[in-house]
Amino acid sequence: MTEAPMTAQAASTATAGDILSRHLTVQAGAFLRALPLAVGEVGARPGTASTVPSAGTSDLLRAVRRIGGLLHTFGSVFEQTWAQESRTELRWLLNLLALEPGYLRRSARLLGALDLLSGTDPEGTGMLAGHAGAPKARALLDRQLTLARTRAHSTVLQELRSARLHALADRMTLLVGEAPLLDSADGRAPAVLLPQAAAAFAALSAGAQQLPLQRAATPYGGDGLRRLGAVPASRGATDADTALAADDAPWARLRILVKRARYVLEVCGRASSELDGLDAVLDRQQEAADAAVTAATAARTPRITPATAYVLGVVHADQRLEVESARYAVGRRWPDLPPGPDGWLELVPADAWGHSVAPRTV
Amino acid sequence: MTEAPMTAQAASTATAGDILSRHLTVQAGAFLRALPLAVGEVGARPGTASTVPSAGTSDLLRAVRRIGGLLHTFGSVFEQTWAQESRTELRWLLNLLALEPGYLRRSARLLGALDLLSGTDPEGTGMLAGHAGAPKARALLDRQLTLARTRAHSTVLQELRSARLHALADRMTLLVGEAPLLDSADGRAPAVLLPQAAAAFAALSAGAQQLPLQRAATPYGGDGLRRLGAVPASRGATDADTALAADDAPWARLRILVKRARYVLEVCGRASSELDGLDAVLDRQQEAADAAVTAATAARTPRITPATAYVLGVVHADQRLEVESARYAVGRRWPDLPPGPDGWLELVPADAWGHSVAPRTV
Repeated sequence: MTEAPMTAQAASTATAGDILSRHLTVQAGAFLRALPLAVGEVGARPGTASTVPSAGTSDLLRAVRRIGGLLHTFGSVFEQTWAQESRTELRWLLNLLALEPGYLRRSARLLGALDLLSGTDPEGTGMLAGHAGAPKARALLDRQLTLARTRAHSTVLQELRSARLHALADRMTLLVGEAPLLDSADGRAPAVLLPQAAAAFAALSAGAQQLPLQRAATPYGGDGLRRLGAVPASRGATDADTALAADDAPWARLRILVKRARYVLEVCGRASSELDGLDAVLDRQQEAADAAVTAATAARTPRITPATAYVLGVVHADQRLEVESARYAVGRRWPDLPPGPDGWLELVPADAWGHSVAPRTV
Repeated sequence: MTEAPMTAQAASTATAGDILSRHLTVQAGAFLRALPLAVGEVGARPGTASTVPSAGTSDLLRAVRRIGGLLHTFGSVFEQTWAQESRTELRWLLNLLALEPGYLRRSARLLGALDLLSGTDPEGTGMLAGHAGAPKARALLDRQLTLARTRAHSTVLQELRSARLHALADRMTLLVGEAPLLDSADGRAPAVLLPQAAAAFAALSAGAQQLPLQRAATPYGGDGLRRLGAVPASRGATDADTALAADDAPWARLRILVKRARYVLEVCGRASSELDGLDAVLDRQQEAADAAVTAATAARTPRITPATAYVLGVVHADQRLEVESARYAVGRRWPDLPPGPDGWLELVPADAWGHSVAPRTV
C-alpha cells in the first residue's frame, strides 16, 4: 500500500477496499505522527495560549475528523463492531481535543465583541462606549472562561495519559494498511462506494431542507433573536435555553453533514470550495451560538450589578445577531450549491475511483 | 383664489406668488379645519389611546409639516421676519403635537419588541422566552412611558389653550389668500421656483453623501451596534450617549431633507413613491433609535434587578438592530433614486408651473 499513483491497469480494477484502505492509511499515519506532538503541546501549555490550536493538535483533529467521517459514510464495508467502537473512541478524542481551543476561541470572540461594543475608537465607536458595566462584564466573562479552560486543560492532560488513548492509538496503528474490511469491500470501487457517497449527499440535502434557508436569506429577518425555530412539542417551550437549543440543533446537524460530504469529495480527489466556504460559515454560526449561551449563563451569576447584567444582555443579543448573520450567509450560499444528491454526484469525476487519486493529508 | 383648475391661458402666466399662495391657502385651510378637531380630541383623550394619532391631530400635523416645509424651501419670496417667525411657531406646534403620539408609538414598539423577544409561541419563540426579567422590564418600560405620556398630555392640553396657539391660528388665517409675499414673487413661476427647488434637492443629495450609505447597504455590517459614526472631536466621544446621538444626527437630518423634497414635488403636482418609501424607512430608523435610547435610560433606573437590566440590554441591542435594518433599507433604496439635484429636477414636469396643479390636501 503506497501513496504513489498506481498504474492505469491496476487502478481500473481497484476495489472499494483498496480505495478506502489507502485513504485510511494516510489519515491514520497522520494521526500517529501528530499524537505525540499534540500530547507534548498540551503538556507544555501553561493554560493560556493563542486562539489557534497548535500544529500537532490541529493535525490530530484533522485526521480524527476524516477517519471518523469515512467510517461513518462508508461504514457498511467495515467490520461493524470495530467501526462502531472506533467511531465512538474518535468522537471522544475529538470532543476532548476540541475543548480547550474551543474555550480559547470563545474567549477571543466574546471579549473581542465586548471591546468593539464598548470601544471609543472614532472609527468604530460601539453602542456601549464608556459604559460602566463593560469592564465588569469583561472581567466576569474572562474569569469564567479562564476557569472553564483551566478545567478543560486538566481534563485533557489527564486523558492524554489514559489507557483509553493508548487503545485508540493501537486501533489507528492497525488501520495502517490493515483496515478490517468485510467481503463486500472486494467489489469494484464505483459500484460499492457511489451509493454510499450518494447517501451522504442525500442526508446533506435533507438536513438543509429542514432549515428555513429561504427565510434566512432575507437580511434582518430576525431569525437569530425573535423568530427561533419551533421547539418539538415533546421538549416543551417554556424557557429560552430549550428554545435556543432546539433552534440551533438542526444547524449544528447541517454542519456535521457538510463536513462528511467534504470528506467524501476528498476521497474522490475532488475539492469543493463552495462546501469549504459553507463549512467555515457554519463553524462561525456554531461558535456564535455557543458564545451567546455563555453570555446568557454569565448574566445569571449571583450578585452581579445591573450594569454588568445589562452589558451581558447586549453581548448576548450581539452574538445572536452573529448567528443570524452567519445563517444569512448560508441561506445566500445554498442555492449556488449542487441541488440534491445527484447534483453532488456530478461533482464526482466519472473515473474518480478508476485511477489513483492521491489522498489529501491536509 | 380657488382650487379649481385655471384656464390654460391664465396658468401660463402664473407667477411664483400665485402658485405658492394657492398651495398655502389649501394647507392653511386644512390647518384651520383640523385645529378645533385636534383640540377636542386631546381634551377628550383620557391619557391612554391608540397608537395612531386621531384624525384631527393627524391632519393638523400634516398641514403644519407642509406649510413649514414650503416656507423653508421657498423662503426667499416671503416677507423674511414673518416667514422666520411662522416657521418657529409651526415647529413649536409640530413638536408639541408629535409628543403624545410619539410616546404611544414608542410604547407600542418597545413593548411589542419585548413581547416578541420573550414570546413562547412555537412559530416565533424569542431569545428571552420565559426569562424572569421580561415581565419586570415590561412593567418598568410601561410605567416610565405612561408617565412620560401623561406629562406630555398635560403639557399639550395646557398649550392648546395658550395665547401662543391663538396667535399661530391668526397667522394661518392670514395665509388663506394673503401670504405676505415679496416683489420677487411676481416673477414667472418656473424662473423663481425652480432654483429654490433645486437647492432643496441639492441639500438632500449633500445630506445623503455624508452618510455611509454604501456600507449601510451591506447586510449585517454592524452599523447600528458596533460601528457608530465618528463623533466630532469637539463633542468628545467618552460615552455611548454622545456617540449614539452623533451617529443618529445625520440620519435624522436626512429624514427632514427627504420630507422637504417630498413637499417640493407635491407643489409640482408630482408624487414620488420612492421618496415616500424612503421617508417611511427613515421614520422607522428614527423611532427605533429613540426607542433604543429609552431602553438604555430605563436600564439606568436605580435598584432594578440584574435580570431586568439584562432584558433591557437585549431590547436595547434589538432596537439598534432595527436601526441598522432601516439603514440597510435606505442604503439599498438610495441608488434607485435620482442622483443629484438635476436628477430630481427631471422629475419636475416641464409644465409643472405652466398649468394648474391641484394641491394635495392629504
